[in-house]
Amino acid sequence: MIKIVAKGFFHEGKVNEAIKLYEELVQKSRNEKGCISYNLFQDKKDDTILTVIEEWEGEEALELHKNTEHFIRIVPLLGDLRKKSELNIYNLVL
Amino acid sequence: MIKIVAKGFFHEGKVNEAIKLYEELVQKSRNEKGCISYNLFQDKKDDTILTVIEEWEGEEALELHKNTEHFIRIVPLLGDLRKKSELNIYNLVL
Repeated sequence: MIKIVAKGFFHEGKVNEAIKLYEELVQKSRNEKGCISYNLFQDKKDDTILTVIEEWEGEEALELHKNTEHFIRIVPLLGDLRKKSELNIYNLVL
Repeated sequence: MIKIVAKGFFHEGKVNEAIKLYEELVQKSRNEKGCISYNLFQDKKDDTILTVIEEWEGEEALELHKNTEHFIRIVPLLGDLRKKSELNIYNLVL
């Protein structure tokens, strides 16, 4: 299992637009083979922080995900709405 | 549901000691009322990054957690092993 935390710091006023884009990305990603979970979260204290937390069965599923039409189209659009982002790819320890 | 991502940047050589401490914290936290999930992850590219990803039923369960003997005892000990940490408390959006 691979866990991903993709944290985005969005420009003020662009959060709703981002959530709209995430709606399609979340829905289509969940339907992909090897996707265990794929959720969008918003920071309780700073609503310009939107974070996707994903779980994939393995590297192969993750690579396929990165080459899907929806990933290739939507992820750059999200990038345009963000000030910066942090991506951590994790292994489960405990 | 409340999701927490607690990311720690640990000093070189202190990672195993931290994992040892997390073993008790993870095991006891999972047994608490209102704990949906409580897992420890390690960054695939930088093994000095250890991140706990937790899910709690609500604020009350989270407050009780912060007042448990194991939390009060272990969390400061982890703090001594870290360079810095980032804590995000999230609401589920999608």
